[in-house]
Amino acid sequence: MSRQSQYQELKKECFEANMQLPKLDLVVYTFGNVSAVDRNKGVFAIKPSGVPYEELKVEDIVILDFDNTVIEGEMRPSSDTKTHAFLYKNWPKIGGIVHTHSTYGVAWAQAQMDIPILGTTHADHLTADIPCAPPMSDDLILGDYEQMTGHQILDCFSDKGLSYEEVEMVLIGNHGPFAWGKNAAKAVYNSKVLEEIARMAYLTLQINPKAPRLKEALIRKHYERKHGKDAYYGQGC
Amino acid sequence: MSRQSQYQELKKECFEANMQLPKLDLVVYTFGNVSAVDRNKGVFAIKPSGVPYEELKVEDIVILDFDNTVIEGEMRPSSDTKTHAFLYKNWPKIGGIVHTHSTYGVAWAQAQMDIPILGTTHADHLTADIPCAPPMSDDLILGDYEQMTGHQILDCFSDKGLSYEEVEMVLIGNHGPFAWGKNAAKAVYNSKVLEEIARMAYLTLQINPKAPRLKEALIRKHYERKHGKDAYYGQGC
Amino acid sequence: MSRQSQYQELKKECFEANMQLPKLDLVVYTFGNVSAVDRNKGVFAIKPSGVPYEELKVEDIVILDFDNTVIEGEMRPSSDTKTHAFLYKNWPKIGGIVHTHSTYGVAWAQAQMDIPILGTTHADHLTADIPCAPPMSDDLILGDYEQMTGHQILDCFSDKGLSYEEVEMVLIGNHGPFAWGKNAAKAVYNSKVLEEIARMAYLTLQINPKAPRLKEALIRKHYERKHGKDAYYGQGC
Amino acid sequence: MSRQSQYQELKKECFEANMQLPKLDLVVYTFGNVSAVDRNKGVFAIKPSGVPYEELKVEDIVILDFDNTVIEGEMRPSSDTKTHAFLYKNWPKIGGIVHTHSTYGVAWAQAQMDIPILGTTHADHLTADIPCAPPMSDDLILGDYEQMTGHQILDCFSDKGLSYEEVEMVLIGNHGPFAWGKNAAKAVYNSKVLEEIARMAYLTLQINPKAPRLKEALIRKHYERKHGKDAYYGQGC
Repeated sequence: MSRQSQYQELKKECFEANMQLPKLDLVVYTFGNVSAVDRNKGVFAIKPSGVPYEELKVEDIVILDFDNTVIEGEMRPSSDTKTHAFLYKNWPKIGGIVHTHSTYGVAWAQAQMDIPILGTTHADHLTADIPCAPPMSDDLILGDYEQMTGHQILDCFSDKGLSYEEVEMVLIGNHGPFAWGKNAAKAVYNSKVLEEIARMAYLTLQINPKAPRLKEALIRKHYERKHGKDAYYGQGC
Repeated sequence: MSRQSQYQELKKECFEANMQLPKLDLVVYTFGNVSAVDRNKGVFAIKPSGVPYEELKVEDIVILDFDNTVIEGEMRPSSDTKTHAFLYKNWPKIGGIVHTHSTYGVAWAQAQMDIPILGTTHADHLTADIPCAPPMSDDLILGDYEQMTGHQILDCFSDKGLSYEEVEMVLIGNHGPFAWGKNAAKAVYNSKVLEEIARMAYLTLQINPKAPRLKEALIRKHYERKHGKDAYYGQGC
Repeated sequence: MSRQSQYQELKKECFEANMQLPKLDLVVYTFGNVSAVDRNKGVFAIKPSGVPYEELKVEDIVILDFDNTVIEGEMRPSSDTKTHAFLYKNWPKIGGIVHTHSTYGVAWAQAQMDIPILGTTHADHLTADIPCAPPMSDDLILGDYEQMTGHQILDCFSDKGLSYEEVEMVLIGNHGPFAWGKNAAKAVYNSKVLEEIARMAYLTLQINPKAPRLKEALIRKHYERKHGKDAYYGQGC
Repeated sequence: MSRQSQYQELKKECFEANMQLPKLDLVVYTFGNVSAVDRNKGVFAIKPSGVPYEELKVEDIVILDFDNTVIEGEMRPSSDTKTHAFLYKNWPKIGGIVHTHSTYGVAWAQAQMDIPILGTTHADHLTADIPCAPPMSDDLILGDYEQMTGHQILDCFSDKGLSYEEVEMVLIGNHGPFAWGKNAAKAVYNSKVLEEIARMAYLTLQINPKAPRLKEALIRKHYERKHGKDAYYGQGC
């Protein structure tokens, strides 16, 4: 009789969040990965590397600690694992991370531009432009690349004075988006929101290259009604 | 034995119209809402706030009067409820209202531009450009924001000399589209038509930035054959 | 016992071709219509006006002669019926006609531009640019509009020296595409091909506004291998 | 009792790879074809010409040798067969070839431009721009056209100093993409990857016409981690 893993629930959360990516048109083939953390046990679960979503099973999910040691699992973890571990280690309040190559997110990342806040769809989720971290310097690329991607994200947030609790998404210049949240499902939600905002901003600037940034009063109003202390959006749970 | 609500039919109409939005690709997640009115009873039904469409049930629909008092329902109504109430109060002949963040509608709203009438697809439905209400002034935003959104729409129609019975759609600058109609199903239809027209106008001006407005004789002809007193489009019912 | 209509087969061909339009993403709601002709009986079958595709039934299809007299059917025929009748009358070798408001076809029509032949996808089907008939003069619009749309198409082909047997599609300026073929199914095929070519041409010119027209030798080669007397594309049936 | 063909497995591989094309939105109607090779038997299997995917059956697949002689099969092979044969003959290490008219691939081919390497999605698969072979000279078009398309591809790779083992895709100017790989399934994968990269590059340059090429250190890093001798992407099988 096989004993069930103590990480079964965590693997399942991670698996189900991963399976949302193709359903939401955020990935083709193996172009993305989701992880989920268990802070009490000090581990996280992540998709194995290079496995197509249609073949992925709960038991394929790999469990690691924050120093990238595999705790459980037969398969090699996602090649982006060190980036996930680094973010979990540095940002104690996040519970899930998503990386995709979603089309419009990648296009802005390749354009090496922040996605400007142009409307209330954006302000409903964050009050800043979606930051695009500049490409890594050559010496860092030749070093521990995936770990350095984590540094690149932290440096970007530090340079721009952003809080990872308020801005739950970033573009890596020339690469693509990362998003996070209180759990894996929320991180997936943020990935989809980023892709929609990226597409709307693209179309807006095609229609009117001089479209202005959303004004400060509207940014505040929309964010506060959803996330402020007197928020009245949603069912308050 | 539970007694059935006297608003059961109204809730059902509202629920079914809401469920059309994701099917017609007009919303992701909770990015939209539909309401339906019962003029005799002086109430309207609206989607609860922040509930994903895949989880929405008929009994979740909230019933309110035109002064925003909840008459029936356990959940908090849509955060845009006051805008709906205001429009029902001021426009006695509408029976349903839809708000979405549909992609092309939002792009034009963020571009802060009216959608010009460029062809017969547009003229089959309305003879004017689809108006884009300018962003609200800061003092109004800080006031009763959603109620003010209703004022913003009425002011826009008044400034441009438009009739809400002929032009059943509007863009709120920096936000997105509202549409209405004789009932909730017709309002949903108008939301989809707006999105298609918005997409066609975008593509037209990408192909030919100098594409001219549709000429007056064609505007009249297409609108009259569908909506005029001698209309010969449809089955006359 | 009800006697079966002598037009049953024709109605069925027309119905099935109509039902392809939403499947091929060429229409939403009622934005299109297909007709099919029976040359021996001197009649054609067409979609009734304003009936949504999901509700359409074989018995709703209307039978008319080429002078627009209804021969069989309870419903009012498509508002574009006179255009279809006019084309059947003047072009003896066509067996089916399709009108849609497909997105990219409409965008080029609203741009009032011919779709230039830019590649072999286009040349596989026709050797000319897809013509865009200029908008109708005001006096014609006020006359018998739908009949005049037929004239508009014939005038366009005459002015440009095109053969309706070689060029089986046209754009009506400010309106949208018409396509035809030896039967209704082939006309639907041509409608879809037009939409794909329109989309590819749009993207090509966005990438490279100076993209050259396909050179003559390639136009000839691709068309001849598919349609010439020594054609070797397909199974020769 | 019918004896089973010795090419049954090859036909099935070819059939299944062909059936992926419509599922992956790479073709409509008959706009594409896949072949698969059996090096030991010196033959390849290819889709019959002009057969819609929804009607295609395993037994329709045609078997030919590298001199274009039909070995088995009732139907006429794809009109592009000679191009496939020529590539198999000259490139001994490929096992499958795909040709499509996928939308974004065709748009770049009609623009007559290489697809520049702008990000890591591209670098994960190849380190060079995706080459666009210039249109064929008129005398070659009038000769053995499809065979000459093979020459055109080889000349392009020779002129640009590319290896077919590292760059598994090409655009034929004014026509569309070809892709190949160690087997038919991998060739289909490469076709889909090309289409995604083509779309991302299009959007990137619309957002920022001056978006720079990916820098050399990142090109190397992403390619090596997936394909280099110390690759750590995937499960190593």
